[in-house]
Amino acid sequence: MPNSAERLGRAARRSDRLKVKIEMLPTLRRNIPLTEPMNEEQIEKMDDASLSILEEVGVEFHDPIALEHWKEAGASVEGERVRFDRGLIRELIKSIPESITMHARDPEKSLEIGGNNSIFVPMTGAPFLTDLENKRRMPTLDDLANFHKLSHMLPAIHSSAHHIVEPMDHAISHRHLRITYSSMKHSDKTFMGMTSSGKNAEDVIEMCKILFGEKFIDTHPVVTGNINGNSPLVWDQTMLSALRVFSAHNQPVLCSPFVLGGANTPASVAPTVAQVNAEALSALAYTQVIRKGAPAIYGHYLATVSMQSGAPMAGTPEISLMNFMIGQMARHYKVPWRSSNTLGGSKVFDAQSGYESASTMMAVLLSGANYIWHSADGMRLECIAQWQNLWLMLSNAKWAIEWLKE
Amino acid sequence: MPNSAERLGRAARRSDRLKVKIEMLPTLRRNIPLTEPMNEEQIEKMDDASLSILEEVGVEFHDPIALEHWKEAGASVEGERVRFDRGLIRELIKSIPESITMHARDPEKSLEIGGNNSIFVPMTGAPFLTDLENKRRMPTLDDLANFHKLSHMLPAIHSSAHHIVEPMDHAISHRHLRITYSSMKHSDKTFMGMTSSGKNAEDVIEMCKILFGEKFIDTHPVVTGNINGNSPLVWDQTMLSALRVFSAHNQPVLCSPFVLGGANTPASVAPTVAQVNAEALSALAYTQVIRKGAPAIYGHYLATVSMQSGAPMAGTPEISLMNFMIGQMARHYKVPWRSSNTLGGSKVFDAQSGYESASTMMAVLLSGANYIWHSADGMRLECIAQWQNLWLMLSNAKWAIEWLKE
Repeated sequence: MPNSAERLGRAARRSDRLKVKIEMLPTLRRNIPLTEPMNEEQIEKMDDASLSILEEVGVEFHDPIALEHWKEAGASVEGERVRFDRGLIRELIKSIPESITMHARDPEKSLEIGGNNSIFVPMTGAPFLTDLENKRRMPTLDDLANFHKLSHMLPAIHSSAHHIVEPMDHAISHRHLRITYSSMKHSDKTFMGMTSSGKNAEDVIEMCKILFGEKFIDTHPVVTGNINGNSPLVWDQTMLSALRVFSAHNQPVLCSPFVLGGANTPASVAPTVAQVNAEALSALAYTQVIRKGAPAIYGHYLATVSMQSGAPMAGTPEISLMNFMIGQMARHYKVPWRSSNTLGGSKVFDAQSGYESASTMMAVLLSGANYIWHSADGMRLECIAQWQNLWLMLSNAKWAIEWLKE
Repeated sequence: MPNSAERLGRAARRSDRLKVKIEMLPTLRRNIPLTEPMNEEQIEKMDDASLSILEEVGVEFHDPIALEHWKEAGASVEGERVRFDRGLIRELIKSIPESITMHARDPEKSLEIGGNNSIFVPMTGAPFLTDLENKRRMPTLDDLANFHKLSHMLPAIHSSAHHIVEPMDHAISHRHLRITYSSMKHSDKTFMGMTSSGKNAEDVIEMCKILFGEKFIDTHPVVTGNINGNSPLVWDQTMLSALRVFSAHNQPVLCSPFVLGGANTPASVAPTVAQVNAEALSALAYTQVIRKGAPAIYGHYLATVSMQSGAPMAGTPEISLMNFMIGQMARHYKVPWRSSNTLGGSKVFDAQSGYESASTMMAVLLSGANYIWHSADGMRLECIAQWQNLWLMLSNAKWAIEWLKE
């Protein structure tokens, strides 16, 4: 029978075992030079091309409130088509903060987005997963909870994001509430908020008020929301109404043209970047119409389309080249920017998945992206494969942090 | 029954089908900026550290002829240890050509090695292969012939190399002859020559004389030979005698310290580069003792060693960082340089193999290597996996060529 000293020793060891210290790596601060294919003159040309698109072709805002806002702001509105004087765009984007401090529930996990910082955010939006019995099935809220827990525990992941998998066992009407609660409950890292409608975005903001306090969130960014564009040159009502809610509450949106290069953009790289840049600028400018000085993130989702079959392709080198160029444009405008990493066209966790993921990842790091979001959501790959990709790639990011410090 | 015009048409089509046009992509000319972690001052420091190693510690040349040569050249020789005045090293390496034109049997497949050109050379040295029945076995000369034919047919491969697999069905005494003949017979691209002894190197040169003409090869590089160092700071007789044969005949050798970072070098990156640089410089200088103005290539084989288990590791980020730095040193000395790509630690063709290969490949391209040799030969991976890696990665290189042109 153990004596009392032994019992005390055991109790101490047991208590130690139960205290799991969740460590998060700091943001990746890049100390290696970025890959910048454009010189200063080419950046000016690209800027000029994008502002000419905004002036001459314009962008459609499929939303009566946004059209009213643009009229008031001095843009030319014709039907749903808005044309912008280049001076107006330049003036509006000036007030976007160059860097954003995102506040996490655990203040030690708060993050800087901007400058030479990169943060890593899990993939989201998978409608299927492959479980540990290797069975492909619809995900549930319990599965999502597990992914949120994993996000919380992985040191190189800086966010629990939102619907890493779609919890199909809950009705769409209140799914966004379940998702947001799961992000908040299972991790004290930063997270993303659902932007699937203006109303849903309002619910997210209400939940953030409960978690952080109403006054706090009005001056402190705590949640990011993604706003996808309907490229070419269209922003729709769903996204614009969610953008308004986030920006009005001082929460940053990712203004993300959704690019299927060659299908909804020109076939070659340079004009595609001009179009994406015009689209991103028009949404970034709109955040400042809603609230001058609100944080906002230059975004995009980049895929390409096979010129032979028309099939969407991820992990192609054109995507990397676009990332290099878009990074230069975002830095030119002094706005933090978001990209996606570990993109791949494979539907299983095989060598193709590995090398495409790594190629994209390396390019995104060298392009200087600040907010490095998920794997191939547009491709709707099976979640587990993507997750493993991300995980493995991020081990590299961890090493990278170590060696970049030297 | 076909009339005579139909018959002629058929014959012409048949003749067209039989004419297989083997197209080779040009060297990859890089138009994106290189990743250069060191500034001018740090390059000078690295140069100084390496020259101090050569002056104070010295390098062992396990070869009486080389020791005699070094005495004559004015180095300090003590036993097998040679110490070099920094002026001597600087003076000797000055005469190495900045760029090399390698002449192929098909003049259209001749190549420039140097400047912003990169060429891709298959892996070599696999003692096993996995065949199409997924059986792991010893390779034969017939297998090697198939790999040489594949090298010949792959557009992004610029060389047929030498023993891609070891033809185990032939005795070592004449294996180098079989290998060289196979390289020459099954491809009209450039190739590599065996350096497994001074005598074997002489046989390779004799065979090149038969193929190209004696006078031609004395003024035109047609074959490259690899000279591995026994790091730390040792060159052995086998390699030195082969180096002498190649350099005397104006054929370039790759002066390749063989690095197991942390095992035969210091544990951290910067001093490892200083050591590798000293080793490479000492062999490069020796090529100029043999024949002033002979072409030579700054080389290395980089692996790291796990600090936990001592196991060799390929595909690690330290390797990439070393590549970035070594590239800067080679450009500082104005000598073409060789690296290895698609390195990985996996023994099968899986996702790890894919992402490690891609990470290494991207880093090697961004480091500006001119002569991009094989996959993980030091790891002795099964050949087919490596080959597939290389093939897949080089498809990327092909795309890269296209987009880098823009």
